[in-house]
Amino acid sequence: MTDVFDHPWLGGLFADPDMAALWSPDAQLAGMRAFEAAFSRALGRAGLADRAEEAARAIEGMGFDMDDLRAGTAQDGVVVPRLVRQMKAQAGDAAGAVHKGATSQDVIDTATALAMRDTLALVDRRLADLTAALEGLAARFGARPLMGRTRMQAATEITVADRIAPWLLPLADHRARIAQARPRIARLQLGGASGDRADLGAKADAVAADMAAALRLENPARAWHAMRDGVAEFAGLLSLVTGTLGKMGQDVALMAQQGIAEIELSGGGTSSAMAHKQNPVLAELLVTLARFNAGQLALIHQALVHEQERSGAAWALEWMVLPPMAQATGRALAAAVTLAGQVRRIGTPE
Amino acid sequence: MTDVFDHPWLGGLFADPDMAALWSPDAQLAGMRAFEAAFSRALGRAGLADRAEEAARAIEGMGFDMDDLRAGTAQDGVVVPRLVRQMKAQAGDAAGAVHKGATSQDVIDTATALAMRDTLALVDRRLADLTAALEGLAARFGARPLMGRTRMQAATEITVADRIAPWLLPLADHRARIAQARPRIARLQLGGASGDRADLGAKADAVAADMAAALRLENPARAWHAMRDGVAEFAGLLSLVTGTLGKMGQDVALMAQQGIAEIELSGGGTSSAMAHKQNPVLAELLVTLARFNAGQLALIHQALVHEQERSGAAWALEWMVLPPMAQATGRALAAAVTLAGQVRRIGTPE
Amino acid sequence: MTDVFDHPWLGGLFADPDMAALWSPDAQLAGMRAFEAAFSRALGRAGLADRAEEAARAIEGMGFDMDDLRAGTAQDGVVVPRLVRQMKAQAGDAAGAVHKGATSQDVIDTATALAMRDTLALVDRRLADLTAALEGLAARFGARPLMGRTRMQAATEITVADRIAPWLLPLADHRARIAQARPRIARLQLGGASGDRADLGAKADAVAADMAAALRLENPARAWHAMRDGVAEFAGLLSLVTGTLGKMGQDVALMAQQGIAEIELSGGGTSSAMAHKQNPVLAELLVTLARFNAGQLALIHQALVHEQERSGAAWALEWMVLPPMAQATGRALAAAVTLAGQVRRIGTPE
Amino acid sequence: MTDVFDHPWLGGLFADPDMAALWSPDAQLAGMRAFEAAFSRALGRAGLADRAEEAARAIEGMGFDMDDLRAGTAQDGVVVPRLVRQMKAQAGDAAGAVHKGATSQDVIDTATALAMRDTLALVDRRLADLTAALEGLAARFGARPLMGRTRMQAATEITVADRIAPWLLPLADHRARIAQARPRIARLQLGGASGDRADLGAKADAVAADMAAALRLENPARAWHAMRDGVAEFAGLLSLVTGTLGKMGQDVALMAQQGIAEIELSGGGTSSAMAHKQNPVLAELLVTLARFNAGQLALIHQALVHEQERSGAAWALEWMVLPPMAQATGRALAAAVTLAGQVRRIGTPE
Repeated sequence: MTDVFDHPWLGGLFADPDMAALWSPDAQLAGMRAFEAAFSRALGRAGLADRAEEAARAIEGMGFDMDDLRAGTAQDGVVVPRLVRQMKAQAGDAAGAVHKGATSQDVIDTATALAMRDTLALVDRRLADLTAALEGLAARFGARPLMGRTRMQAATEITVADRIAPWLLPLADHRARIAQARPRIARLQLGGASGDRADLGAKADAVAADMAAALRLENPARAWHAMRDGVAEFAGLLSLVTGTLGKMGQDVALMAQQGIAEIELSGGGTSSAMAHKQNPVLAELLVTLARFNAGQLALIHQALVHEQERSGAAWALEWMVLPPMAQATGRALAAAVTLAGQVRRIGTPE
Repeated sequence: MTDVFDHPWLGGLFADPDMAALWSPDAQLAGMRAFEAAFSRALGRAGLADRAEEAARAIEGMGFDMDDLRAGTAQDGVVVPRLVRQMKAQAGDAAGAVHKGATSQDVIDTATALAMRDTLALVDRRLADLTAALEGLAARFGARPLMGRTRMQAATEITVADRIAPWLLPLADHRARIAQARPRIARLQLGGASGDRADLGAKADAVAADMAAALRLENPARAWHAMRDGVAEFAGLLSLVTGTLGKMGQDVALMAQQGIAEIELSGGGTSSAMAHKQNPVLAELLVTLARFNAGQLALIHQALVHEQERSGAAWALEWMVLPPMAQATGRALAAAVTLAGQVRRIGTPE
Repeated sequence: MTDVFDHPWLGGLFADPDMAALWSPDAQLAGMRAFEAAFSRALGRAGLADRAEEAARAIEGMGFDMDDLRAGTAQDGVVVPRLVRQMKAQAGDAAGAVHKGATSQDVIDTATALAMRDTLALVDRRLADLTAALEGLAARFGARPLMGRTRMQAATEITVADRIAPWLLPLADHRARIAQARPRIARLQLGGASGDRADLGAKADAVAADMAAALRLENPARAWHAMRDGVAEFAGLLSLVTGTLGKMGQDVALMAQQGIAEIELSGGGTSSAMAHKQNPVLAELLVTLARFNAGQLALIHQALVHEQERSGAAWALEWMVLPPMAQATGRALAAAVTLAGQVRRIGTPE
Repeated sequence: MTDVFDHPWLGGLFADPDMAALWSPDAQLAGMRAFEAAFSRALGRAGLADRAEEAARAIEGMGFDMDDLRAGTAQDGVVVPRLVRQMKAQAGDAAGAVHKGATSQDVIDTATALAMRDTLALVDRRLADLTAALEGLAARFGARPLMGRTRMQAATEITVADRIAPWLLPLADHRARIAQARPRIARLQLGGASGDRADLGAKADAVAADMAAALRLENPARAWHAMRDGVAEFAGLLSLVTGTLGKMGQDVALMAQQGIAEIELSGGGTSSAMAHKQNPVLAELLVTLARFNAGQLALIHQALVHEQERSGAAWALEWMVLPPMAQATGRALAAAVTLAGQVRRIGTPE
């Protein structure tokens, strides 16, 4: 099975190419390259390095020896030492303008911040799409009657709009949360060896401001090497979104039961054993992805216990968990929009 | 062992009386009583009930038969049917102004919203206290040298202020998060049987506005019976706070190791076997509480999959998890302040 | 709300007095007392202490100053230093036979091992009870038809026995697991200060064998202070049991839906808003408890990372999580037996 | 970043090719192919199909249209309908001997059972390797002194053998657990549409016995479609193993601190900022993988709530979580063996 998001057939169900692109090795490499180029240029403008533009262009134009990067990661636990070695070799005489005063965590975390920033933008756009889709359903079917169900038991009659409301209304709150949290998440990471920017001396803040502007990231007062609350807040936003969609999925799956029949979908899944079945595949998927993210979120919060100036152990746990969380969220949003489009009818059958 | 927060001896380590009071059965009962009294009065002012003030005063002044409440909870899965029955009996001729048009979830969730609101206020106050305590440490010891440690290895020399910064700086962000999230958390719950406020007719919004003002809660556009994102956001805030404190605790425990000796504490724990030991008990406790909340948070996010108009299963999971999370957070904040006060020295021994 | 297991009204739904008794402070104190008395006697028989029987009887007969225990736990992070101080005071001239060569973890973990042992016995008995109850249901209703449902959709007709089988068959496997795991769980803890039994010298193994026999526990080759796999295996057993019951509960709640009506229960819960409702309260509770234990299990596994000879942080996490897991399991088993007894009919309505 | 186990450079740190091979799409396809071929042959031998051997050989020899499998999974939520359609097309006139009476879950779960069986075998072999490696360390360094540390504080002097014991002794228990659990995990799945083997009639048990023998799997009394305790037990075993290794990794990382210096390693990682550093990369990795598996385990236990005859939602959650857990376990074992080989010295420096 391996990774469901990048799998020859399970990818048909789980893959979200747009989100996968934001967290791909290519994107990660592009993010690290962008960091180093911006850093070289900022060093140059701050008078901390010569031939800075030359170094930046070398970094921007070069290819990488991936076998060397892999061997280096095996050795060092992190890709950056070899990445920088390759960059310096490429920069040649301009090597003095490469990475001088930065550290591995600056490079990787800034690339992650770019991915988180772009993820929030993608999630926000899809929340808008889903809002429109659900408002469309409410417009078409909202006035139709439906049996309200509490504790899985028939309660009092409601309308379809009442059933849709808890799928729809939290989406606006999620968008507000994203807007509020973005400045705490999309932050430049720049600290140097122990996070104090010591090697950049009096020019440290100028370098940081320059880089933040170039990379379109926030410029925090100091490095967040060992302050992972922004990362955890990001993960929490993702899981809040998938949680809302999981509730929608669970509702749809329950409504689609024979004997209940409160929803009619096109395009449901077939069975290898029973030709008559129309399985609410995307509805179930939303439940799966919600439960998946809920579990992963705990690990990102475990990783808040990030000791001293850098925890190799806690940091690597983020590497394991963030990309699948983002992909689960992207896929859930896309699936929810598709599912909304599959609705032929909601409400008590006539 | 049972519940560590309310335990004859473990309570010495884990209990936080201020936070416990906010989530105690007494507070819960007070919250439910406040809901019902405000609801009766709002019904009266809206012209939906007679003798409303009389009913409200009966509710406010009465005692409860706890055995009956317990038996009712066993039967109904929720305390409110018996609670209301007792209230109606007490109200006598004014019973028509009691709970008419409300439902169990309105009562319990509003009481929870009050507890969440007061918890955020308490957490915010203690974040301010801890900020002051850590700023004090930074003022006293901040300029002293300290070996920076990355991946548990000596890196480059930093200052004590650099080590303290990741304990201190996120506190301001946590306070900003609380301020932003509070309106999504401290919300009146009012929906009636299936959450659509149908039984209150055209007066529903007026009743809700009246109650929200009386209870000093936000007045959302509709009931959030099946929209639990505010609850999950609340839990996420708690775990972000304990995560930051867990990082501080881990750092202190590591600094207190013999051979490292970068911190000297008064008042450490003794050992039953070794009289010479000074254990960094509160530092370890901060790690424990951070890991505890991280795990519980996953369950609150699992409970986002809250089916249809009310999920008995997901709702009861919140009941199990929210109070210990709040108590863990309260205790962690109090312990962190105490721990900061125990510091006799931070920095490389002279 | 506080702890649902020990709550004035929520206890009606969540409390299991038999299981609570096994993990109560009283039981914990009894376990620690039993450890110390057995230890004193074993020291005496090994020739390592005088007046050992006198010390043991003093320990067995004494009361404790609970305020002192609480203050000591606050100070030391663990109750044992004060507990032992009280015991020595009580033993008077026999104090030399008290705790000499043992450590806090020996005392607390042995008490926990006794609680785990008795918990497994209680769980095993209730698994037998539930097996009988479900076999009874299968005998009464097993041949009746029922619509099989896969992916929440009608599949092919099965029998009630087919639906019950996945509730019933794993119970035997759980019992087999308990029998296999018990010797790895119900183990004496005896290691002394750093776990090497050094202070007991050449008599260490004799003392351990003597104590294990007296306490009816296994006698492992050495102390398991920092080997927590037995604890994690215990927690895993509990969550496997509640998982099976959660599946049963989810099925029952789904079968009880109007429109499906494949089960008829007596004694369901009523609603504060709708007199006609019969809520499947115990079925939902089984789902809640299964999800609760699943989440807690992660924390016990996090606590496997138990550094060096004793981790105060990881150990205290066990204290927070084990007692609620045990109580959730006890309650789930009791509720499942009750729920089985509430069944008036299973199968397609005639 | 995407999946760390299959990543161009992070794979250098996280990948375990042997374990990845057991859970790869190729292995999954081979497992499904093996199921269907064995099923066809068993149908033939039971007299339930003609031209069975011809069908089996067609299945064994064919290639698959992966785009079609992907499109089918997107449509059906499961790969098997299209897989079977391709198989039937290939079998031509023998198509009547393909999959007749089986269902998707039979195919996928049997393939998973094969992967779990082979995973347990690989884990067991590596546990033996690690046992030998740690016994070697104990033989070389075991008698050397070391400061015992409890609650992160110096306690009493122990030996290196005492420190190694909690890394080593649980390995034998893990192997015993695997041996006991294997028959509950490595089980044929055969149930047909709703799990009752109805379509196989009186020959069902004969078909199952035939298949179990051919596939070298246990032959349970009935299908375990909705009984996932074996899967959860498997996941629990993996996390117990990584938990023990995580404890070893945490210890090594702590011992490697400057100022403690109780271990000397060759081959540690370098830093992009500090040439002098020797980071205990593999030790940290063990902690990361332990925490990862602990978190994932919660999700497999959440998936025990597997409703009715098949839960699409809970089942897909297993697909997401099992392969990374297996890979984390394989990698942790390999890394622990490597780490043991990197030890140049354990014990107090002379």
